[in-house]
Amino acid sequence: MYIAMNRFKVAPGAEKDFEQVWITREVNLHKEPGFVSFHLLRGPTKDDHVLYSSHTVWRSFADFEAWTKSESFRKSHSGAGGSKKLYLGHPEFEGFEVVQEVGPDGTKSVLAAAE
Amino acid sequence: MYIAMNRFKVAPGAEKDFEQVWITREVNLHKEPGFVSFHLLRGPTKDDHVLYSSHTVWRSFADFEAWTKSESFRKSHSGAGGSKKLYLGHPEFEGFEVVQEVGPDGTKSVLAAAE
Repeated sequence: MYIAMNRFKVAPGAEKDFEQVWITREVNLHKEPGFVSFHLLRGPTKDDHVLYSSHTVWRSFADFEAWTKSESFRKSHSGAGGSKKLYLGHPEFEGFEVVQEVGPDGTKSVLAAAE
Repeated sequence: MYIAMNRFKVAPGAEKDFEQVWITREVNLHKEPGFVSFHLLRGPTKDDHVLYSSHTVWRSFADFEAWTKSESFRKSHSGAGGSKKLYLGHPEFEGFEVVQEVGPDGTKSVLAAAE
């Protein structure tokens, strides 16, 4: 399991507009092999911005990587953000391998320990 | 839905030991009201460290907050990390409200839009 996050610094006051871009966009991610779920997250307010992050869960890194090389990835990122820029600087990408999982009933599973 | 993440900077070479502390610890989180899931994440290698993050999903911020005020929270953090320190500096906490969710079938739901 792999979690792809993209961190955005949104200027205070632009939160609603930024969220609306995400909420109203057309979503085709679920057609990609290995897609599990997508969440848009609103994080803490830091010095001059509100931290937002996209949060996409994939079955594996390989599934994520295949998507980044697909035509649908290229299309979905060609007009990203529209004409008005609602965040500061560039988004910061962070990808995570899931090492361990604990489910709702307390079951522990090791998915990808360091070698 | 609320995601609580704690970011750790782990020195290269200490990855296995750091993961083992998490993998072998006793887990009682699932007994807390509103607990959904826990994941330990291994992220990118940055300048002088490997980024790890804990990733706990709660039904709501209120559930997370109630847990932080509980006796079990105090107990679980009293001996955190054992005697040997496996990460640099202090962990950095970031909590996130889930604004929008897209499920495996593409269903979109707005959970907590900015006011």
